[in-house]
Amino acid sequence: MLREAIYHRPKNNYAYAYDKDTLHIRIRVKKGDATNVYLIYGDPYEWNNGRWSNASKPMLLEGSDHLFDYWFIDMKPEFGRCRYGFELHSENERLIYGEGGFFNSTPNDINFYFCFPFLNEIDVFKAPKWVKNTVWYQIFPERFSNADPKLNPPNTLLWGSKDPSLTDFFGGDFQGIINNIDHLVKLGITGVYFNPIFKAATNHKYDTIDYFEIDPQFGDKKTFKKLVDTCHEHGIKVMLDAVFNHSGFYFAPFQDVLKNQEKSNYVDWFHLKKFPVTPLPEPNYDTFAFTHEMPKLNTENPEVKDYLLRVAKYWIEEFDIDGWRLDVANEVDHQFWREFRAIVKRIKPDAYILGEIWHDAIPWLQGDQFDAVMNYPFTNATLRYIAKGDINAEEFANQITRVLISYPKNANEVAFNLLGSHDTPRILTMCHENKDKLKLLFLFQLSFIGTPSIYYGDEIGLTGENDPDCRKCMEWDEAKQDQELLELVQRLISLRKEHAAFGNSGEFSILETNNETNHMTYSKKNAQETIIITINNSKNPINITIPFDFTNRKPTDLWNNKPLKETSKIELPPYGFSIIQVRNK
Amino acid sequence: MLREAIYHRPKNNYAYAYDKDTLHIRIRVKKGDATNVYLIYGDPYEWNNGRWSNASKPMLLEGSDHLFDYWFIDMKPEFGRCRYGFELHSENERLIYGEGGFFNSTPNDINFYFCFPFLNEIDVFKAPKWVKNTVWYQIFPERFSNADPKLNPPNTLLWGSKDPSLTDFFGGDFQGIINNIDHLVKLGITGVYFNPIFKAATNHKYDTIDYFEIDPQFGDKKTFKKLVDTCHEHGIKVMLDAVFNHSGFYFAPFQDVLKNQEKSNYVDWFHLKKFPVTPLPEPNYDTFAFTHEMPKLNTENPEVKDYLLRVAKYWIEEFDIDGWRLDVANEVDHQFWREFRAIVKRIKPDAYILGEIWHDAIPWLQGDQFDAVMNYPFTNATLRYIAKGDINAEEFANQITRVLISYPKNANEVAFNLLGSHDTPRILTMCHENKDKLKLLFLFQLSFIGTPSIYYGDEIGLTGENDPDCRKCMEWDEAKQDQELLELVQRLISLRKEHAAFGNSGEFSILETNNETNHMTYSKKNAQETIIITINNSKNPINITIPFDFTNRKPTDLWNNKPLKETSKIELPPYGFSIIQVRNK
Repeated sequence: MLREAIYHRPKNNYAYAYDKDTLHIRIRVKKGDATNVYLIYGDPYEWNNGRWSNASKPMLLEGSDHLFDYWFIDMKPEFGRCRYGFELHSENERLIYGEGGFFNSTPNDINFYFCFPFLNEIDVFKAPKWVKNTVWYQIFPERFSNADPKLNPPNTLLWGSKDPSLTDFFGGDFQGIINNIDHLVKLGITGVYFNPIFKAATNHKYDTIDYFEIDPQFGDKKTFKKLVDTCHEHGIKVMLDAVFNHSGFYFAPFQDVLKNQEKSNYVDWFHLKKFPVTPLPEPNYDTFAFTHEMPKLNTENPEVKDYLLRVAKYWIEEFDIDGWRLDVANEVDHQFWREFRAIVKRIKPDAYILGEIWHDAIPWLQGDQFDAVMNYPFTNATLRYIAKGDINAEEFANQITRVLISYPKNANEVAFNLLGSHDTPRILTMCHENKDKLKLLFLFQLSFIGTPSIYYGDEIGLTGENDPDCRKCMEWDEAKQDQELLELVQRLISLRKEHAAFGNSGEFSILETNNETNHMTYSKKNAQETIIITINNSKNPINITIPFDFTNRKPTDLWNNKPLKETSKIELPPYGFSIIQVRNK
Repeated sequence: MLREAIYHRPKNNYAYAYDKDTLHIRIRVKKGDATNVYLIYGDPYEWNNGRWSNASKPMLLEGSDHLFDYWFIDMKPEFGRCRYGFELHSENERLIYGEGGFFNSTPNDINFYFCFPFLNEIDVFKAPKWVKNTVWYQIFPERFSNADPKLNPPNTLLWGSKDPSLTDFFGGDFQGIINNIDHLVKLGITGVYFNPIFKAATNHKYDTIDYFEIDPQFGDKKTFKKLVDTCHEHGIKVMLDAVFNHSGFYFAPFQDVLKNQEKSNYVDWFHLKKFPVTPLPEPNYDTFAFTHEMPKLNTENPEVKDYLLRVAKYWIEEFDIDGWRLDVANEVDHQFWREFRAIVKRIKPDAYILGEIWHDAIPWLQGDQFDAVMNYPFTNATLRYIAKGDINAEEFANQITRVLISYPKNANEVAFNLLGSHDTPRILTMCHENKDKLKLLFLFQLSFIGTPSIYYGDEIGLTGENDPDCRKCMEWDEAKQDQELLELVQRLISLRKEHAAFGNSGEFSILETNNETNHMTYSKKNAQETIIITINNSKNPINITIPFDFTNRKPTDLWNNKPLKETSKIELPPYGFSIIQVRNK
């Protein structure tokens, strides 16, 4: 076996506490190298005369990518403590691997084993229970619905009268959202993520002027309270956008700095590099990206920390919001997020904390900071396979396996799985307006592990390139909405609710990928049922055999709601799919 | 190049902040695979049209083990932000590696690069400055010196009258330490780590009865204050042992539980499994190991947390101690240690926090918990090569390289490098009483990166197998002390002080290992000087060429304090060593 390929290290995605009693342990091995892998383990204090009395446990091959196999096991250490190693078998070799390296036989020094010293409940990664079953809907408030023209900012354009520029206003407001709550309810939405709603200068509101005020174009605090109540009455959770990495240019403390310079009481609120502080031609202070209108906040300063943590508390305590989505979360210090979590969870233990992180986020998912991150690795892989078509079925399976093995399972279950947002082109546009592809995208998103998020309007076929085009006004004329698409999304969401295995309680397994046909078959399985999904991501019809034996299993075509013959042969049209269910014994 | 061997992941030992301006980045490659490695990097927001304008920087081959090479670079990202990848060259291949995998040419999607999003100063791992220059001495108070017979516990034995049993008392006390402070001063010690001193039932005091009281056999608080003052007057820091994982059996809250059972106010102070709580035949509560006299404390309970954090504060505020060594630190929850660090550093910012962790400790060395851990991987490798002789020079070099690459450099500089302790056999005994080997052990320990710790009596040649034999009474009869050994340790410690390169400011590099002769040559280098050390770990003399060109470098034999001929040839007796210094230009 290729020793260089074998990898394990405790306390990340390779070994973590799944709950207060259970450890998950994973090892990476060169693809195809091992025929069997066993976990050798014991209590560190039951080690006697160079050995444990108990035996080893077989691990499960959970997935592969193009280089590696990943083997997995869950186990409950009796006294909460665990030392462990791996026994890898190939046709002609037996190899032991532990923290001390590789051995031909079980090493008699306990220090050569890996250690998970104690399963302390307080350290276990724990997201709110409700998140697992949530289907999110992202609303960019300026563009969802304008119901109260009195609030319109100057030069507000007629709703949908043109494609937006970067600076246009169309006057979307809270009353518009309240008025259209039925659209969300009918769709099956159970959580809304709002782009920023606090007082700001731009249409996107990422340049906060006052974190304690609603932007007047959206309404006032009373309307906001009504919005939250309306959502809650309809079983919909509310998540706001916390832009804590930077403030807006017109944030009072920053204006004070510009006015009073060295003498300002707020010089330590930002990362100023010299005086006089000048925004142009180039800002001489840290900013978000190189945007002088967005001065970076000094979140290490206790005053700033106190201010922002009061913001975090205020909107939960006064308006009962259910979660915070953290903008540019990766550039703010970890220490700040730890204190943020402590305060948020103290006042609302089941509040959801979602970080915007586009890259590998394991340092933020250790249980002390975020509940989840925006799952862009999922987004990228799915869009590349289905929308852009620049990777084939096998490579997609590899990338999706990497998405799943990169984080603990309890983090994957609440990952925020988006296909598009205000920061990316519309998914129908990415599909080159091929609606059949868009359907496959929704199918995969809504049957995958995690919590899916639908960006407003994607469900009715809005199009558009990147900002500003992906922020067009929501279309409310039913005749102009793609009703077929809307119905598909509705039905997929209800499948998620009616069949737990289709949603988060189903184990995801890739059954087959085929690069010639470019189709893929995967299953979602729980104790009650197995759901087998095939995606024909090709312009040609396929006639294939599903790698599953349906004999005596009474398969049902779940999508068309009819019994099937007990055969594994199916035909699918171009970009077609099938969803087959069998009950487990 | 072997793709399976290539490994990198940010925010651990592979990419970390060394200080508020500097990132350290490391990559693992199959041994011998790459001829050159370059870091490709840029600011995430200076990415234009699929590329950065700036170039790449060559990395340095910093070390190897038997499977891998490790390449290293330090860099200062201009705006604190960094995306990066690696360009690996071999004779016939050029390979790009990033978070997105392997590429034949520079990928044009920034998401394929690794990310170190922002260098926030508050997150930087930062140990107290003084620790880097500390030479520790570990005192087991019961066995160091008995100066006040009035304090003797019942049945105290005559000092050194016999080899100790597990339960003997010899009456060591604080006055004895005060009286012998000159021994430490002469040796060059600048920090003392005391095994537990709080009221407890046993001679080792790891079964605390009262965390706010000195054990009466050692003296009272006044004597302890005098001891701390005496140490401080002599430039010696004081570190106490915090046994917070478990209490002793006679700790009042546990006694209360035994007495009042369900009705006790302290039922949540421990991990009780059922009532009635019974210690025997097997405890029905969590314990340290399976020791019923040591009930595990529930450090998740805010009352317990509050109690223990008050302990942590009390001994710093009232007695000005300089550090805490945390017993069984790995089995206590991370959340507790984060709060512990916050409080300790708030009242004494330069207090040292040292965790007892025997295995890979990266989860505790992220800047939010410990300053250092007891460096048992260093201990094990060094003892195996020199004392036990069960690994050869090359394998030792491999293991020492792994010690160095396993943690950030700022953590290595303050690692607690011990050769033996109250939990291991005496090092002279492990050397089968070969004193020449013991000298090599001290030489390597005292010239290595980190802060060395000498276990009382090792410097004068105490012997003994594991507990209780490794806890013999200190020998104060100079005629019975090994004066030659004592002088060697003294001289090595003073070399560490006189030559910064010999200590922590010198970069450690392995120049040569030879399995036939079993010798090893390594260097310690800073801007001023290079010190080249050869260890002949063999019963045969050697006649070798040092892989260093001394021509025109005016080498000095630092050990014998005399100029050398400008030749690389040296002869060393069995178990001999040389320490050669040259000044850098």
